[in-house]
Amino acid sequence: MTEASFQAWMGEVQSRVESALGRVLPSVQVAPSRLHEAMRYAVLGAGKRLRPLLAFAAGEVSGAPLERLDAVACAVELIHAYSLVHDDLPCMDDDVLRRGKPTVHVEYDEATALLVGDALQSLAFQALADGAGHVDMVRLLAIAAGSRGMAGGQAIDLEAVGKQLALPELEFMHIHKTGALIRAAVLLGFSCGPSTPEPDRGKLDRYAKAVGLAFQVVDDVLDAEASTATLGKTAGKDARQGKPTYVSALGVSRSRQMAEELRGEAHAALNDLGSRASRLAALADFVVLRKF
Amino acid sequence: MTEASFQAWMGEVQSRVESALGRVLPSVQVAPSRLHEAMRYAVLGAGKRLRPLLAFAAGEVSGAPLERLDAVACAVELIHAYSLVHDDLPCMDDDVLRRGKPTVHVEYDEATALLVGDALQSLAFQALADGAGHVDMVRLLAIAAGSRGMAGGQAIDLEAVGKQLALPELEFMHIHKTGALIRAAVLLGFSCGPSTPEPDRGKLDRYAKAVGLAFQVVDDVLDAEASTATLGKTAGKDARQGKPTYVSALGVSRSRQMAEELRGEAHAALNDLGSRASRLAALADFVVLRKF
Repeated sequence: MTEASFQAWMGEVQSRVESALGRVLPSVQVAPSRLHEAMRYAVLGAGKRLRPLLAFAAGEVSGAPLERLDAVACAVELIHAYSLVHDDLPCMDDDVLRRGKPTVHVEYDEATALLVGDALQSLAFQALADGAGHVDMVRLLAIAAGSRGMAGGQAIDLEAVGKQLALPELEFMHIHKTGALIRAAVLLGFSCGPSTPEPDRGKLDRYAKAVGLAFQVVDDVLDAEASTATLGKTAGKDARQGKPTYVSALGVSRSRQMAEELRGEAHAALNDLGSRASRLAALADFVVLRKF
Repeated sequence: MTEASFQAWMGEVQSRVESALGRVLPSVQVAPSRLHEAMRYAVLGAGKRLRPLLAFAAGEVSGAPLERLDAVACAVELIHAYSLVHDDLPCMDDDVLRRGKPTVHVEYDEATALLVGDALQSLAFQALADGAGHVDMVRLLAIAAGSRGMAGGQAIDLEAVGKQLALPELEFMHIHKTGALIRAAVLLGFSCGPSTPEPDRGKLDRYAKAVGLAFQVVDDVLDAEASTATLGKTAGKDARQGKPTYVSALGVSRSRQMAEELRGEAHAALNDLGSRASRLAALADFVVLRKF
């Protein structure tokens, strides 16, 4: 696959997902309109849509129909968007900038931001139930989002402020905080297809674990090195908040090396899957080589 | 059904649901343990368990097995518990007392309370997917909890502070804020049984609408008249916060009369269902005649 065709595919999926999210989110004409406006503000018009991209790429491995992938993509992106809205609240990271725009509680107010996050989480499960339609998939997403997944990772993150964690603890935190939902995106996308043998699922699980960690390592490097303008969110925040990161544990150069190793692991996991997995392979490269 | 046998049934269901919630909530031994401790603090050991009682009573109409009802009861109670935790936060109602104990953000901290609510919502969908297991039920709960249900009702409530609403607007607010989840409890409990003809579902829907509104009318009366000690939550809060209520719109005496009329509507909706619906009928009385 050429770089140009991968870029074209990314653009197609991103625009397809934008439309699907626009349909799933209630219209501002529907009451309560201010809440619906704020939900649309939080979700639409920005974001790399990495989790949807992973879902669509994993769907290619199992031959999944695009309509079911739309539902999975919306579900994982809505969970991700809700977590950002709540994470930016004053009682959490207290941030004012996200995806290049004022955060929801700045643009609206704190109470609205709280309800936006709450309602986006409900909507994620509704979208999944509506369009992808299997209760095992609901269970997988619920576990990934909950206290033994993403929300649990946030709690570990809170407790870690001001501490220097050892590498295994840092990894434990990120497997929950970022890794769980990335893994869910891959496995749910895969689950949408007619051909989902267990060995393939196991390979995608190993792939997702490596990509999830690589994503976080690169995130830490970018937070330390890139500018706020490039990131569309406040840069240098981790250090100021005294959060343990891969950069604080390993330094930038060894963090970059670790991301490279994880990219290798992700590719290795896909080895036997052939061209069905070429988008997943390209996404591993995208995650590690991205500049924002 | 005698009052004593109804009381005994309530006690049995409450204790059954307490055990089921205790099993569904992660142990404090599981990491992140502080989050899991706070989740258990928010859910266990108190509460009338009205929504679980409604689910079990509705299950009697359709002959539902108790194990599936456990899952539905946990799911609706976890959604309810999450909404209380978030509703008590400083950016919402800013309350310090709930179910006779310090609220979660007072006992722990705001960030933990935020994550507790988030994780309880995920857990509700997990419990429903695990134990009751149909994707239509997931969809029903998601809609009831989301922006066109409970979370939407909270948003309408926020916008209404300081205003005097007309009765239809007040009803619109409460159909969302309290009614949606009460309706979900009834319909999900009913859905667990083998015998769920559409006409019966329609009757339960009418019943649930009347009980949901009656619950809120009585809540408003109790907030105005009962003591904090009796309620286990701060009394007189609505008036102090300038919230429109049935009491502010109608006065206490006409509010009581309205609750009585709604109790009549609830009973009328159950008319043809015979003894299968006797618990639901008794619960309508309980909701209207309760003192806390």
